[in-house]
Amino acid sequence: MASREVVVVGGGITKFAAERVDASVRDLVTEAVLLAVDDAGVDLQTVEHGLTSYESDHFNRQMTLGAILHDHIGMVPKPNVRVEGGGATGALALRTAFAYVKSGLCDSIIVYGGETNGRSVTSATAQQFFSLSSDADWEMMVGGTYTAYYAAMMREHMRLYGTTERQFAHVAVKNRRNAQFNPVAQKPMDLTVDDVLNSIPIAEPYKLLDCSLLSDGAAAVILATEDWAARHSTRWNERPAITFAATGCGTDTMRLGDRPFPYPGLAHFRGKREAARQAYKMAGIKNPRTEIDVAELYDSYSGVELQACEELGFCEYGKAGSLAEDGVFDLGGDLPVNTSGGLLGRGAPVGATGIAQAIEIMLQLRGQADPRRQVANARRGLTDTHAGTGTHCVVNIFERRD
Amino acid sequence: MASREVVVVGGGITKFAAERVDASVRDLVTEAVLLAVDDAGVDLQTVEHGLTSYESDHFNRQMTLGAILHDHIGMVPKPNVRVEGGGATGALALRTAFAYVKSGLCDSIIVYGGETNGRSVTSATAQQFFSLSSDADWEMMVGGTYTAYYAAMMREHMRLYGTTERQFAHVAVKNRRNAQFNPVAQKPMDLTVDDVLNSIPIAEPYKLLDCSLLSDGAAAVILATEDWAARHSTRWNERPAITFAATGCGTDTMRLGDRPFPYPGLAHFRGKREAARQAYKMAGIKNPRTEIDVAELYDSYSGVELQACEELGFCEYGKAGSLAEDGVFDLGGDLPVNTSGGLLGRGAPVGATGIAQAIEIMLQLRGQADPRRQVANARRGLTDTHAGTGTHCVVNIFERRD
Repeated sequence: MASREVVVVGGGITKFAAERVDASVRDLVTEAVLLAVDDAGVDLQTVEHGLTSYESDHFNRQMTLGAILHDHIGMVPKPNVRVEGGGATGALALRTAFAYVKSGLCDSIIVYGGETNGRSVTSATAQQFFSLSSDADWEMMVGGTYTAYYAAMMREHMRLYGTTERQFAHVAVKNRRNAQFNPVAQKPMDLTVDDVLNSIPIAEPYKLLDCSLLSDGAAAVILATEDWAARHSTRWNERPAITFAATGCGTDTMRLGDRPFPYPGLAHFRGKREAARQAYKMAGIKNPRTEIDVAELYDSYSGVELQACEELGFCEYGKAGSLAEDGVFDLGGDLPVNTSGGLLGRGAPVGATGIAQAIEIMLQLRGQADPRRQVANARRGLTDTHAGTGTHCVVNIFERRD
Repeated sequence: MASREVVVVGGGITKFAAERVDASVRDLVTEAVLLAVDDAGVDLQTVEHGLTSYESDHFNRQMTLGAILHDHIGMVPKPNVRVEGGGATGALALRTAFAYVKSGLCDSIIVYGGETNGRSVTSATAQQFFSLSSDADWEMMVGGTYTAYYAAMMREHMRLYGTTERQFAHVAVKNRRNAQFNPVAQKPMDLTVDDVLNSIPIAEPYKLLDCSLLSDGAAAVILATEDWAARHSTRWNERPAITFAATGCGTDTMRLGDRPFPYPGLAHFRGKREAARQAYKMAGIKNPRTEIDVAELYDSYSGVELQACEELGFCEYGKAGSLAEDGVFDLGGDLPVNTSGGLLGRGAPVGATGIAQAIEIMLQLRGQADPRRQVANARRGLTDTHAGTGTHCVVNIFERRD
């Protein structure tokens, strides 16, 4: 099967915003699909399979949205499937699309995800719905919220390793600064560490500016065999080939309290470590810190980016904070993280997030990012995406070949 | 990839019932998983991947149930993904699991689906929720219901082909009779055609006994490479090997009114025809009527079974009704259909339905069905599953090899 490599033919992403009042989720997905088709240089009628990525019926007040979106973008009567896994939905969708192409079930597939999480905020329903993604039988009833769970995880990380609030505030500053160079970003900001530290407390140790965004938006990617891309994409020879080199997935218990002590305990994302282990093995990576050039990590809260750096093996446990302060993960650093702005700055429409991360890596590997955020000669990039407090974790790795 | 054949190692299915008051969806899925593990003769700890199959957050008042069930059955920290596609969910789950194994992402995977649609009936919420699986923007608001859509499709079939109410009443009788020989069936009944014709009208031309069931229940199947099965299943050599030979998927427009005239128009399931075309090509089937020995078709309403027989190429359009009356699809007929009892007699917990169909085929091909419903020397079986009025359609084909 070595000859059946999966390549990224193209991708498209809409503007992310707190409220895209101009567009329903159908409109957003259609916009992303048209952008992906244009970027890929393909006729959508030649694409063989569809894969729909969105999180919840609740957000859209609609069941079977997979069928509706597939119809709306004009893919009937071709095959389709919908994939879901909480916050990891978009990355699981890409992983599943990889399996569909690699298995030979199709030679090309369009993966599209969209969500209108942003507009839900105004009616407070987003928090109600997100609480339904904790365990409704055992957690929701005692008033647990995701912000509180993440805060507990970070507080334990501080206790174990001495990580400081200034260290993760640096992440909040960096990602919103990077967002200033990304035209689709929802919340570009020019902040200082003190601005973050002085923002209103949400759940100790997290302040308002440590928290990521709820977004409206969509993203789409076309994957295919290289043979299909060469035959159907008019732009295939214009740019270096980007391969979908590896994918891994790990999981963890639903309840934090069920996690074995001392590891993973409260401070760790065991699923990320497992996902990375699988993906590194598949890609032949021994030392991720030096062998990965750019990474999009799931910074749902600023501290999570530090936790992710450690679980993914970029450094030892407890070292990510000081590396962040040293600028290792900044633009221009050894291993730039969240050049797109991440969830903190670019935004996070759930079903689109993992796809948007992959598109940022695609742009970086092609050398097509805005020059102010472009990583010089990036050849291998990674995305890290998770659900809940790490229940589903996915690592996808992309490579430039030329 | 010819050497990487996907096999069915084992399967398990709970009792289906209108209300399994003894069990939550977690309990039902766990029961099915334990039965599958026992049937397969494997240690669940050796299975590499999980795949969760359920339809809607609404039915369970729970988001990210994939993570919860994966945790509940003890699969953490291994990979998982959740797949959904309305009524076709279970069949899409198996199709996707096929892709995961065939692609090499894993060598073994457990697919489990469960639902508590049955108990929802008592509070009338099932109909509210199912109405959310029509188009909430364009259909629900005008009062459309699925029973009405199916009735319109059958009425058009009667107009085009002269199909009669007695003909599809025969299906309602046959499937509930078959259910009498299936210990997990929800509604075994000994009826006459006149009983069906005299039951209360629901939506012309359908009467109460033409309509399928809402069910609580779960089912699970373990798929793997043959090499994995030979190494990990203590029972692998006890029974003939069952291969997952082929899979196809087709789709159709969300709204009946958007379907091109004259074909597919109102009377046809275009997606089934497309799914069958793909699956027959993959399995090398030229004449399904003679090359398929047993089939589980998605009889959400009695007439749909006739429509499915025609779309799947068992006969020409308009001929299924008289073949049904002639007993061709009965136990002992040329091509027995819905030996399990189907959705009409066995029941249909949505996320489990496609998996339950595959388990019936597995039992038939192994020769392990109750002797009163066993098809003699069945070597190739087919499942047909669809969502909505045919928006997602999946055909999976299994073969006995010995």
